[in-house]
Amino acid sequence: MKIVEVCLTPDLVKTYGVENKVVVVVDILRATSVMVTALSHGIKSITPVATVEECKALKDKGYLAAAERDGKTVEGFELGNSPFTYMDKSFAGKKLAVTTTNGTLAITRSVMAEEVVIGSFLNISSVAQYLKNQEHDVMILCAGWKGMVNLEDTIFAGALVEMLSDSFDSENDSAIAALALYKMAKEDMMAFLKNSAHAKRLQGLSIIKDISFCLERDVYNIIPVLKNGELVAREGNYALAGS
Amino acid sequence: MKIVEVCLTPDLVKTYGVENKVVVVVDILRATSVMVTALSHGIKSITPVATVEECKALKDKGYLAAAERDGKTVEGFELGNSPFTYMDKSFAGKKLAVTTTNGTLAITRSVMAEEVVIGSFLNISSVAQYLKNQEHDVMILCAGWKGMVNLEDTIFAGALVEMLSDSFDSENDSAIAALALYKMAKEDMMAFLKNSAHAKRLQGLSIIKDISFCLERDVYNIIPVLKNGELVAREGNYALAGS
Repeated sequence: MKIVEVCLTPDLVKTYGVENKVVVVVDILRATSVMVTALSHGIKSITPVATVEECKALKDKGYLAAAERDGKTVEGFELGNSPFTYMDKSFAGKKLAVTTTNGTLAITRSVMAEEVVIGSFLNISSVAQYLKNQEHDVMILCAGWKGMVNLEDTIFAGALVEMLSDSFDSENDSAIAALALYKMAKEDMMAFLKNSAHAKRLQGLSIIKDISFCLERDVYNIIPVLKNGELVAREGNYALAGS
Repeated sequence: MKIVEVCLTPDLVKTYGVENKVVVVVDILRATSVMVTALSHGIKSITPVATVEECKALKDKGYLAAAERDGKTVEGFELGNSPFTYMDKSFAGKKLAVTTTNGTLAITRSVMAEEVVIGSFLNISSVAQYLKNQEHDVMILCAGWKGMVNLEDTIFAGALVEMLSDSFDSENDSAIAALALYKMAKEDMMAFLKNSAHAKRLQGLSIIKDISFCLERDVYNIIPVLKNGELVAREGNYALAGS
């Protein structure tokens, strides 16, 4: 049986190891939710970069560019880290460069993995189906906050562990912990998260709308995967309720 | 209000930082449970060392010495990692050197802290009382397993967070997660842990007796603290039911 494990922050990637695993990178608030949204609305590719300087360089080459630090859009960049920004048809076919506080770091630390997949509640069933249809062990990598554990990514990890439990062995401690936390939170995730450090950091009305959207399940049916340094969309074979 | 946070493995100590904090090191199965037991039975001091070689050197100087790797007693050492070994009155007044797979590493990574305290279920109320009576923020440092998160230490952290909640702010994500996990486990911790990776590693009858003992609350009323590289017992002011 394949194994699914949970790595609670990018600072533990070396401890757990990514070799021969498919890594699902998750940064629910909001980097990976944004990536899934952007690719679902026609963005051609997303290039995650570690620094604001690299992001600026790609912007100068004609990329759309989004840079976020500490939850705020970096000066000199128009695009930030709200999923609603990317529901713009005029972006279709364009390339996007992105740097964020946590999410892009989690991706760059995973490049030695068998494959890197982007997960969020917005595409959770497509990702689960994709993972079941392949042969490798899976690590769900929570982006966390500056190396620290956060609740929203851990809860997502638990939700995905639950969906994978019929075809993956999840009896390792990090997966058991994430699953237990998800079971406690799932009836009202917003209420469970209201005391979390990151939700507090993101206070303000427009952000609450973002959080609420980022907790919706199966809005999109794509699996973003990393190919030659770019995230591109694979079509999922999970049928959305509305499709 | 003072803050209590949880660091889920020694590999995250640098991420969270120990400066100006009292660090409670916890390795429930079994290093810190053994330390509390040994000091409660009259061992004069415990010197935690990182390597088997250092432990051997202290043994040659006349220390009692215990070395454990991967749950087993290292060849050449008589004393292992079972708390029952240390209920021996003939050890009273002697010095003990210890090296274990995880617990001693957690201690050596915490030396820059304001103070290092040893926690276990066996002395949890004494430790809680001690932490309430001092002025510093607290980090509960789970020893984990080879850098990875484990359930038993995380559950202990949640139990201690709960006991501190009237005088510490515990609204950070790691503390919230540990507390939620403890609430789920507390009715029957043994059953909750039966699938944990470490409990599986420790299978076998004599070890189940160890696990059961290590989950008992308030058997002892001491607080081991690190002084000049040695753990020594401070008498707690928590009154045990039997005393």
